[in-house]
Amino acid sequence: MNRVHRPDGNHHSGFTRLRYAAGVTHANLDGLFNPRSVALIGASERTHSVGVVTLDNLRSAGFGGELFLVNPRHALIEGLPVYPDVRSLPATPDLAIIATPADQVAGIVADLAACGTKAAVIITAGFGELGAAGTALQQQVLAAAKPAGLRIVGPNCIGVIVPAIGLNASFAQVMPPAGDIAFLSQSGAMVTAVLDWAQPRGIGFSHIVSLGDMADVDFADTLAYLTGEPTCRAIVLYVEGISNAPAFLAAARRAARTKPLLALKVGRQAEGARVARSHTGALAGSDLVYDAAFRRAGMLRVDSLSELCDTLETLAFTDSLAGDRLAIVTNGGGPGVVATDALIAAGGTLAELSPGTIAKLDAILPTCWSRGNPIDLLGDTPARGYGDVVKILRADDACDAVLVLNSPTATTDPSEAARATIDALGPNGRVLPRNVFTAWLGEELAAPARRLFRQARVATYETPEDAVQGFIGRVRYRHQQLLLDASASVTDDGLAREAATVRAIIQRALAADREWLEAEDVSTVLAAYGIPTVRSRTAEDPDGAAQAASLLTGPFALKIRSRDITHKSDVGGVVLNLREPDEVRAAALAMRARIASTQPNARIDGFLIQEMAVRPHALELIAGLSVDRVFGPVVLFGHGGTAVELIGDTSLELPPLSAELAKAQMARTRVWRLLQGYRGAPPAAIDAIAGVLVAIGALALDHPAIGELDVNPLLADAAGVLAVDARIRVTNDQVRSAIL
Amino acid sequence: MNRVHRPDGNHHSGFTRLRYAAGVTHANLDGLFNPRSVALIGASERTHSVGVVTLDNLRSAGFGGELFLVNPRHALIEGLPVYPDVRSLPATPDLAIIATPADQVAGIVADLAACGTKAAVIITAGFGELGAAGTALQQQVLAAAKPAGLRIVGPNCIGVIVPAIGLNASFAQVMPPAGDIAFLSQSGAMVTAVLDWAQPRGIGFSHIVSLGDMADVDFADTLAYLTGEPTCRAIVLYVEGISNAPAFLAAARRAARTKPLLALKVGRQAEGARVARSHTGALAGSDLVYDAAFRRAGMLRVDSLSELCDTLETLAFTDSLAGDRLAIVTNGGGPGVVATDALIAAGGTLAELSPGTIAKLDAILPTCWSRGNPIDLLGDTPARGYGDVVKILRADDACDAVLVLNSPTATTDPSEAARATIDALGPNGRVLPRNVFTAWLGEELAAPARRLFRQARVATYETPEDAVQGFIGRVRYRHQQLLLDASASVTDDGLAREAATVRAIIQRALAADREWLEAEDVSTVLAAYGIPTVRSRTAEDPDGAAQAASLLTGPFALKIRSRDITHKSDVGGVVLNLREPDEVRAAALAMRARIASTQPNARIDGFLIQEMAVRPHALELIAGLSVDRVFGPVVLFGHGGTAVELIGDTSLELPPLSAELAKAQMARTRVWRLLQGYRGAPPAAIDAIAGVLVAIGALALDHPAIGELDVNPLLADAAGVLAVDARIRVTNDQVRSAIL
Repeated sequence: MNRVHRPDGNHHSGFTRLRYAAGVTHANLDGLFNPRSVALIGASERTHSVGVVTLDNLRSAGFGGELFLVNPRHALIEGLPVYPDVRSLPATPDLAIIATPADQVAGIVADLAACGTKAAVIITAGFGELGAAGTALQQQVLAAAKPAGLRIVGPNCIGVIVPAIGLNASFAQVMPPAGDIAFLSQSGAMVTAVLDWAQPRGIGFSHIVSLGDMADVDFADTLAYLTGEPTCRAIVLYVEGISNAPAFLAAARRAARTKPLLALKVGRQAEGARVARSHTGALAGSDLVYDAAFRRAGMLRVDSLSELCDTLETLAFTDSLAGDRLAIVTNGGGPGVVATDALIAAGGTLAELSPGTIAKLDAILPTCWSRGNPIDLLGDTPARGYGDVVKILRADDACDAVLVLNSPTATTDPSEAARATIDALGPNGRVLPRNVFTAWLGEELAAPARRLFRQARVATYETPEDAVQGFIGRVRYRHQQLLLDASASVTDDGLAREAATVRAIIQRALAADREWLEAEDVSTVLAAYGIPTVRSRTAEDPDGAAQAASLLTGPFALKIRSRDITHKSDVGGVVLNLREPDEVRAAALAMRARIASTQPNARIDGFLIQEMAVRPHALELIAGLSVDRVFGPVVLFGHGGTAVELIGDTSLELPPLSAELAKAQMARTRVWRLLQGYRGAPPAAIDAIAGVLVAIGALALDHPAIGELDVNPLLADAAGVLAVDARIRVTNDQVRSAIL
Repeated sequence: MNRVHRPDGNHHSGFTRLRYAAGVTHANLDGLFNPRSVALIGASERTHSVGVVTLDNLRSAGFGGELFLVNPRHALIEGLPVYPDVRSLPATPDLAIIATPADQVAGIVADLAACGTKAAVIITAGFGELGAAGTALQQQVLAAAKPAGLRIVGPNCIGVIVPAIGLNASFAQVMPPAGDIAFLSQSGAMVTAVLDWAQPRGIGFSHIVSLGDMADVDFADTLAYLTGEPTCRAIVLYVEGISNAPAFLAAARRAARTKPLLALKVGRQAEGARVARSHTGALAGSDLVYDAAFRRAGMLRVDSLSELCDTLETLAFTDSLAGDRLAIVTNGGGPGVVATDALIAAGGTLAELSPGTIAKLDAILPTCWSRGNPIDLLGDTPARGYGDVVKILRADDACDAVLVLNSPTATTDPSEAARATIDALGPNGRVLPRNVFTAWLGEELAAPARRLFRQARVATYETPEDAVQGFIGRVRYRHQQLLLDASASVTDDGLAREAATVRAIIQRALAADREWLEAEDVSTVLAAYGIPTVRSRTAEDPDGAAQAASLLTGPFALKIRSRDITHKSDVGGVVLNLREPDEVRAAALAMRARIASTQPNARIDGFLIQEMAVRPHALELIAGLSVDRVFGPVVLFGHGGTAVELIGDTSLELPPLSAELAKAQMARTRVWRLLQGYRGAPPAAIDAIAGVLVAIGALALDHPAIGELDVNPLLADAAGVLAVDARIRVTNDQVRSAIL
């Protein structure tokens, strides 16, 4: 029970701590998540108001620390004493909850900062979402808080709940029990929805944080705190957008090393079409970059609220898997098939029952049982059949988890079958080392059975697919951890490079206000980072083109050079297979005339003459770089050629890359299998391709001015790689921060 | 209330009908779905036995016809009279329910057939699933039934329920209310699961049919009956496998013309890898053929039990859509974003609010409302806000449906918000012409609100995504109906053909026991159906190859001919770009030596010399034919070349094809966009490509002996198409039936 501090009381411990707290700046989140005293500013007694709901939540949750109420218009609320303002408080609250009108918040925060409060939750809305005036108010709040190290949650949030210490500093409609899952959300509505969903299931939480507009405390701060918090065993995020991506990724990565980190990222459709002038830019859609970033950080992404809820159930009631093999027990063929379909579609593995298990099952099941996995008990099996089978599977090392399914029948009560299953699991509701997942289908008879499972803390779902999704969540987490181990070592890419050469080229281009690098410069840049390119020369006119060809070895490719033409082949600006310098001259004359008539506004800078790559069995790949406005540079790999966007076979990764990460990136495309050798062609030089991706990642991090880079096609065969066409755009105004 | 017929009674109407019924053979399903009398054979009083549950179901469901009980070991059951056998019955039952041991069933069926019973539901298991003995028993049953036209449902099923006439001839655990949805299932467990799920939702059914092993009555029979049944407004199928595909498709097609027809087909993974010797065979996986067949029949396929349940909710509580535009109302930003993501990902359309609607909303909503769709009421909106907004949307012709979302808040009771929404909908729970979908998130506070919606017969779901899925089900149904209209007219493909030429070639090959047609024959077959091919000749040895080349125009392609080599390029059996006959001779010598050393067991039949197609801008396509063991011939189209399986860009369609259907099939691939002209290339000759697909469909139907056909690559450019390489396999033992 919390003690409400009275104006006439003598609790001065707050003042004692004031001097200490004033010296702390960044780490004040302990005041947020483990406060010894809380002040509610804007306490109210108006029914259904935010103030009264928050007060009731604070009082009824069992908080053991001091509670102060502040409101200038009341002396008593619900029979409790009320202080007129923060300055009148007899002690410094560690944490303040602010539910006043927006225009009062900055002054209150200044008072709190002055007295040494560590953190404030601003429930009040009406800041950022109200345009310039609101943004100015928010700046005032931050200006008042930051010098004193006062941390701000919100504004525009539901609040913070830490059940284990009885802290419900929120206006949520329910108080969850203590558990070991933290839920951090940018949407208050998602907090209340998830709490309402979790309540009857008995799913508890270690921390609930409604982050609101994230003016100060954000995902990164909270993740950093929770990483070291032993009461938190898993973290679930609802994400609408990330602000400080490097900090977010660093914190997420550290958190994911020790506990499952799961995110529902929404707003896939919100980005709309970006204006991209390179293949890579067009292909590296913002949402796909989120995928790549979350994967790199070791996070699991879920796609829907249903999946988030199912995974919450899984995290709450199962443990980490030792392996991926699932045994399925069912009393009806259909649900077993549905579960198998879902399992295989998600890349899961059906356990192969050991001969010993089959012999034991033979002894207790009807003769026509399936004698395989799924184990079909048949419809009229008595309830105890469930218990017998589950006990047998507990002893089978060939299965890592058990999914138990039930369809209601008139001959066996689903609740009895649930009880028999629970009894077979032992007192802790699990069968370590094997996890148990259950799905009792239906509602009328099934809902009571599901309640039994919840009471016994056994993971239970409404359909076979949901249960399989829960299991697959555990499988994905296991694989993600293995991948994290592999990528943890990327500190130095080990690449030999001539960074100064590249720097000089970029400086020269920027000084000349040239956005796209000249073709020779592109070749030089790529070569400086070890990417082989075809030999080429530039020329200003057809005669020069013939002259350039005479210094190279044919056959030749002739390409137009124009800062106004992005895709040369689209406008007839590429002619291939020219054999002699004379042919080059003739082709250049024709090309110049053609483009002058079809693209009269395009400035023609001249011609590029390249030695043609004679690599008949080479595959055309694309390797590129674009800069995401949230996550910064992103390396793209894929099946290349002029139709690269239509083929749609690409994958993304954040730099820095190691050869191992680059190969994992390549393996996420379909062309990967072609590269292994196909229809008689020998395998392509995988290491050389990976080297190109590592080099592009290094270019991105070494030279933030590179805004876009496309190598397309990058020819790859058994002998190695060759960049045939490449483009690099540099920019002065690129705001970039390397991902650490 | 049903009348139980007593042995001493005087109801002889059964006998009167006996003479009539004996003349009816195929159409006796009215005896199954609308019987005037029912006999339960194997009535029992053992608690929880199938016999007693079925008896209780029959008695309590309110059946108005006569009910006879049969069991030789009892004179009375539950106080009701019992006849020792069928022959002792005082009248002929229209319908018999058989729940005796399997070995007695055939005798009972013989008695029933003799007295003129129209249909029997065999609940008993232990037939097909028990191997040869069980199969023999099942044959005896059919032999007894068929001559008399007695129709059999099952064996191994739950039974049949027709709520509107109070008929519950099943051992299901609940009796659903009458409604207008029919559910047909091969799995009894799915029947009980769906009934249990539907019961608390108040979802009613017109017919529940557990088809079991489908020894006689199958999907096709039941669909044919239900198509003409006005009480049935929508049909939902749970399918594990189809037996008589032509009958199934014909019945499904007719049913889908008049009512939504939805199927959960499981067993995607059960087929395993087939041995396929052509690209088309490898790519036309059995489950994909189900997709094509269901689409062609106008059915909607769902992928999970959850989706099936959500669509049931949708069918029960919404009407057909006039258009695809959805307005979303929410009290929290997050759920609105989640719904929007799900909608756009599924190809749906957000309604654009009319200026009039925005003005009306401005008048009632807080100033910072979203002023767009989704309409965010903000978290502390009072409950009546929901009603006001829904009323305004009812009048907006720019939206075809409304999705209303709620997250629980402490300041507004979710149930009050639900009541306000329901009140705005009017007495019938809908706002015709606009459908309403609702999702109240959570459980503790949300479940009571969802119950209110169910009582008001308003479609309600647990998450935004589920609700969107329900809406999308309606959208897909609408589009499917438009497609059905388009494909209904395919009766004659209008193709000029020389069928006799092809028939002669096939006969010759079969007579010579040759499985793969000779290259010249392949060209002749394709040409006979209007598919252009490159000119080619065969030769037996290198000298003959040079001689053949001298009669063609170079450059030449040289290919090995061997019945033992399926993919020639894999073994170095293809050399391109040979310019002179001498080069052809040299290449043939080298090829023969190479293959003799690497493939010593391959029989070499000689060489194929082709004129090389010089179509530098042509795309490589694949067009082919394979024979599915369920659905028969299937036409495949896709992005071709040697890596066709890896590119994985194909689509399937069942013959016969029209040009319109062929184009729709092509449009389901990614290469379709390339064919429209890309990066400066002119559009390909779409009509010519469609013509190839129509021709392949015609070949399939005209010549059932064709087992596999591959045209790969089929070159396509603006000038037309050209088959460069093709293979045709013919077979004697092909069991094929044309899809009518």
